[in-house]
Amino acid sequence: MDIAAYMAEVGQQAREAATAIARSSTATRNRALLATADALDAARDALAEANSKDLENGRANGLDTAMVDRLELTPARIDGMIEGLRQVAGLPDPIGAITDMAYRPSGIQVGKMRVPLGVIGIIYESRPNVTVEAASLCLKSGNATILRGGSEAIHSNQAIAECLVTGLRDAGLPDTAVQVIRTTDRAAVGELITMPQFVDVIVPRGGKGLIERISRDARVPVIKHLDGVCHVYVDSHADPEKALKVAVNAKTQRYGTCNTMETLLVDREIADDILPLLAGAFREHSVELRGCDGSRAIVPDMLAATEDDWFEEYLGPVLAVRVVDGLDGAIEHINRYSSQHTDSIITENYTRARRFITEVDSSSVMVNASTRFADGFEYGLGAEIGISTDKIHARGPVGLEGLTSQKYVVFGDGHIRA
Amino acid sequence: MDIAAYMAEVGQQAREAATAIARSSTATRNRALLATADALDAARDALAEANSKDLENGRANGLDTAMVDRLELTPARIDGMIEGLRQVAGLPDPIGAITDMAYRPSGIQVGKMRVPLGVIGIIYESRPNVTVEAASLCLKSGNATILRGGSEAIHSNQAIAECLVTGLRDAGLPDTAVQVIRTTDRAAVGELITMPQFVDVIVPRGGKGLIERISRDARVPVIKHLDGVCHVYVDSHADPEKALKVAVNAKTQRYGTCNTMETLLVDREIADDILPLLAGAFREHSVELRGCDGSRAIVPDMLAATEDDWFEEYLGPVLAVRVVDGLDGAIEHINRYSSQHTDSIITENYTRARRFITEVDSSSVMVNASTRFADGFEYGLGAEIGISTDKIHARGPVGLEGLTSQKYVVFGDGHIRA
Repeated sequence: MDIAAYMAEVGQQAREAATAIARSSTATRNRALLATADALDAARDALAEANSKDLENGRANGLDTAMVDRLELTPARIDGMIEGLRQVAGLPDPIGAITDMAYRPSGIQVGKMRVPLGVIGIIYESRPNVTVEAASLCLKSGNATILRGGSEAIHSNQAIAECLVTGLRDAGLPDTAVQVIRTTDRAAVGELITMPQFVDVIVPRGGKGLIERISRDARVPVIKHLDGVCHVYVDSHADPEKALKVAVNAKTQRYGTCNTMETLLVDREIADDILPLLAGAFREHSVELRGCDGSRAIVPDMLAATEDDWFEEYLGPVLAVRVVDGLDGAIEHINRYSSQHTDSIITENYTRARRFITEVDSSSVMVNASTRFADGFEYGLGAEIGISTDKIHARGPVGLEGLTSQKYVVFGDGHIRA
Repeated sequence: MDIAAYMAEVGQQAREAATAIARSSTATRNRALLATADALDAARDALAEANSKDLENGRANGLDTAMVDRLELTPARIDGMIEGLRQVAGLPDPIGAITDMAYRPSGIQVGKMRVPLGVIGIIYESRPNVTVEAASLCLKSGNATILRGGSEAIHSNQAIAECLVTGLRDAGLPDTAVQVIRTTDRAAVGELITMPQFVDVIVPRGGKGLIERISRDARVPVIKHLDGVCHVYVDSHADPEKALKVAVNAKTQRYGTCNTMETLLVDREIADDILPLLAGAFREHSVELRGCDGSRAIVPDMLAATEDDWFEEYLGPVLAVRVVDGLDGAIEHINRYSSQHTDSIITENYTRARRFITEVDSSSVMVNASTRFADGFEYGLGAEIGISTDKIHARGPVGLEGLTSQKYVVFGDGHIRA
């Protein structure tokens, strides 16, 4: 297979489909989403069969249990995909919204109209349900999509792609508005991220290694976050009860997510009092603590943290702990070591809360709330395609709006510039 | 001079200054702008002296008259810089604005806060007044700036840089919040556009060649437009008087700007009637017309347009003219040949106006208005750093808001995720 030629064809088809889908009505796009949901429901046997091929191959190729688990399309996960499609169909359509329309002194009326970005490339790893999640958000926001899933999920993804094609046809939209790449050749990714003539933005979802590679090599804008090194800072003016509740939730509510706290910062002024309580709470959850010297002077049974620990995204029951010199020390630590994902202060002090949200340069800054809230659903975006820790275009959880742009519309009545 | 080391130092200093400027108050940043204005006013002799060196060198090196003209800092241009600084000081501060704050079902309150991008690199050609224009917008929006002007303006730019430093010091901001690169070595540009650790976005201003090179080689996001191939489409339902007025204004009000019309499209249905009138009006302005066969059948003294003419940004008194098959033909032509800058329809027909603004995929789409309105001042942005024909981040005229990002702020009261 000539990968470059194949990808150019996929790109060209996506570019053409993008025009059709951008012009389609809200009802048409919703119909495609709902018809895809119906098609998935009708294709449960075919999905199971395709998925079992992937699972067999995966086990034969020695995939680890966690990977095999992510690969599996259980009936509950198929239900989840169907439900997700129906939810996205129910979200308000961002496309065509005109805002800020105002008259200018010249007499022209100027506003902004929300429009699709065009063609979105999604690169992801093993979970086949991402195929539906990502495609549904791109479709709803009027974009054409090119999906490149993990090679270990190729049969499952192709089976899902057939349901998407059924949905698109039912709505009278071009089949090529959503394309799942049919080759597992890695060269396809290299092509996808270097075709600015066909692809407007790339959204990679996966491990830090994948995302670093893509960001380095892409010739197309990338919406991404590399990792989530999130902090909770317990200020000396914290309500201890809130501090305990939030810190424990931020770490233990789920270990493997990017918005999980990885480093706990404690104000030196209250460390003697609160650190033993916090350590006790984490011990109950079997969280391994790695502390700075100051922390270990108070709670001696912590392991010693090294410089590397401050940068580490554990994604597991391990927590770095550091005693800092008040708010200034906390902000300095965060702006140095944080991945600019999500950071929270626990305090009852108005001025410190205000300084924290102003001076911490992260995509989500919080006061007296768990970092686990940094999520498209929790923020009311309806769904998210990912979380961005970049500053350009989209920052924080990225929902439908992040997959759109705004153009200027100008209404006149024969107006000319003087 | 070790260019890589020098640029890394400039970058590091900018990154550090960015934190200080991001935290500075509106009043502080305005004071820096006003003090720079005063410093320029007091430095008129020094500016004239530095500028005369550049002018002498330019003439000695055989710069053409247009280039020498752009290079000159006349008293009127210095007045313009001073006035520009005062205007920017008077603009509303975008930084810190919190919007969309709302309670979520979980009880947390979520909103968005506008924040600076960080460090902005500006690359431009001969006009030294761009130094002040660009620096003032970046400063107002809380960003640190690295400016790289044309090598032929190096003395003028350094003299202006001294005034900026005076302004920054007067306001108690770090000198390094605005840095003008002190070398004319082209390698400095190569470094500037490949330091994502120090630079958050590049705004190139200049010819298409410069911008293409920068976009190709940059490892940092670029806000740009390559060229302005703008269209006016005269629909069969146009009011002929408006059509004439707008078409003539769009072409002749100023020839050298990116929002000037370069191709006129005329609906076949009214071409026999209106094309002779339009041609006559352009003849009065000595505009050379290059027409398609259909146009030349009606106005025989036009030159014959070639395929290249549809892509051409003449930036002068030349206009391509094409007869098209109604609105569909116009949209097809525009979406194929337009540089997605600004396109306008002249029509009294509601449905056609609505289709045009929806289906033309350009950064500004207009009805019955001159393309010359596509401009930050005319749109009410106060000023513009440039015009973007990209879809990511900023589209159309880019003002202060385009130099900012939004982070999420979350307020809780000990809220945890269930």
